[in-house]
Amino acid sequence: MEKISFNKSFGGRQGVYRHVSASTGTEMTFAVYEPPEAKSRQVPVLWYLSGLTCTHENAMVKAGMQEHAARLGMIVVFPDTSPRGDDVADDPEGAYDFGLGAGFYVDATQEPFAQNYRMYSYITKELPGIIGSNFNADMSRQGILGHSMGGHGALTIGLKNPGKYKSISAFSPIVSPINCPWGQKALGGYLGPDKSVWENHDACELIAKADEKLHLLVDQGTGDDFLETELKPHLLEKACERSDHPLTLRMQKDYDHSYFFIASFMRDHMEWHAKACWAGKPRPEAKPLAESVAKPVVKT
Amino acid sequence: MEKISFNKSFGGRQGVYRHVSASTGTEMTFAVYEPPEAKSRQVPVLWYLSGLTCTHENAMVKAGMQEHAARLGMIVVFPDTSPRGDDVADDPEGAYDFGLGAGFYVDATQEPFAQNYRMYSYITKELPGIIGSNFNADMSRQGILGHSMGGHGALTIGLKNPGKYKSISAFSPIVSPINCPWGQKALGGYLGPDKSVWENHDACELIAKADEKLHLLVDQGTGDDFLETELKPHLLEKACERSDHPLTLRMQKDYDHSYFFIASFMRDHMEWHAKACWAGKPRPEAKPLAESVAKPVVKT
Repeated sequence: MEKISFNKSFGGRQGVYRHVSASTGTEMTFAVYEPPEAKSRQVPVLWYLSGLTCTHENAMVKAGMQEHAARLGMIVVFPDTSPRGDDVADDPEGAYDFGLGAGFYVDATQEPFAQNYRMYSYITKELPGIIGSNFNADMSRQGILGHSMGGHGALTIGLKNPGKYKSISAFSPIVSPINCPWGQKALGGYLGPDKSVWENHDACELIAKADEKLHLLVDQGTGDDFLETELKPHLLEKACERSDHPLTLRMQKDYDHSYFFIASFMRDHMEWHAKACWAGKPRPEAKPLAESVAKPVVKT
Repeated sequence: MEKISFNKSFGGRQGVYRHVSASTGTEMTFAVYEPPEAKSRQVPVLWYLSGLTCTHENAMVKAGMQEHAARLGMIVVFPDTSPRGDDVADDPEGAYDFGLGAGFYVDATQEPFAQNYRMYSYITKELPGIIGSNFNADMSRQGILGHSMGGHGALTIGLKNPGKYKSISAFSPIVSPINCPWGQKALGGYLGPDKSVWENHDACELIAKADEKLHLLVDQGTGDDFLETELKPHLLEKACERSDHPLTLRMQKDYDHSYFFIASFMRDHMEWHAKACWAGKPRPEAKPLAESVAKPVVKT
């Protein structure tokens, strides 16, 4: 694991790292925020899965997670959204919604993608091992959230791995890739035409089979351009109703698909995760940020 | 004034606008955040001046100002850092520290820059007129802050215009352009070789002449790569001591020059400005963010 950058942030440390991934067969870049609390003890780990076209960087600079993570005592991991590199197969026309930047958090079975596009294994197995070994992380206390394609990732990965995560939430998730163009293209391309295979990566299908009924928090902007065509939160609403699966779906008036929306409600999501992930353990005391050498030269 | 984009953010609105500037003779782009409070009454205006290489966008997406502006009821204006365009003169070698993205908040007198590089007039006269006419802004209640070159801008513009701003603060400012390479290159290039002219744009020189002793808040990271060569906060410290000018200079341990640093202490700065700018007027009540149509489908 190679360090690319460190920046002190809210008393903790925002790092960016590169490593050779056994899952994807490529170099992978990821970011980790370590809160001040992690200097002295193990803290929970929150996974943030990003959307189409994103890298580790988008949420790291735009989502405003560090302030909350510092206050709540949570490590935050920001993975990339696909393998990268000149040798990695991409959408034949370079589209934004398939291939590079669009791994959809599955292990591809179809050529030429099967070799590198193994984001499910990367996020659920390989990267947790690296986080557990290299950071002051309590891997028995993990939460997962994401946005759009990453919301799909958070919901499906959370639902497929009962007991692994204490909390799941999403911003404007693709709730049923089987039922939207983005999802049909991606799952077809990565997993082939057999739709019964797709069901393993469709949150609405997984809800029906879920043994563990972890309460889901989902925020969706009503001004989101992708609401009707791609995101379709009513499908999740119906799936949860059918299975008596607890869901808090909040339709946020006039918010769009951007990080301005995500940042606006990040506080709620992080408190949701902190509550679940810290349960039964004393949470960090709220401390003032100032480790500053406050140096008032002249005071009025 | 042409609207480029609107994004709902923390109950308010983040907009980006373009207009033809009489000051610079070019199109200029700027961003404005309007807090929820501005829907019903005039609110104070906070000017954020950005650093070298930045546009209106950097602080708008990275500084985390919207959450505080929403809570405190402040409009925030994010101007660009220079004129732009194919016809605008630039550094002959395309350097990052002069020309495009590096206007230094002065009105250039030297050719070929005098025609377009008039950022002082733009920020102090033209853009305030546009803000006052187009937003629910109380122009009698303005604060100004900035980072690096923008910290220099905030300090010098604030000091040169007594009565115009209620509050001044800066992150890692260039406190004395006369005494650092960035400043010598810029002031030489824009204003010519006569250093007595430069004194009008040097915070440390202006402190000595200031009639209005507005208390300055300055945060500076001790891990900032530019600390010793360019920023030199001890010069400001000395100038303030000599003139009995109130200064709170906080040396923040291990923080660098990045937006991770700025975001970490933005809360303090915005509360500093809100306190001064709202003085004597009832401030907005802290309201919960949720204008959401909260829609819990199944409650546990």
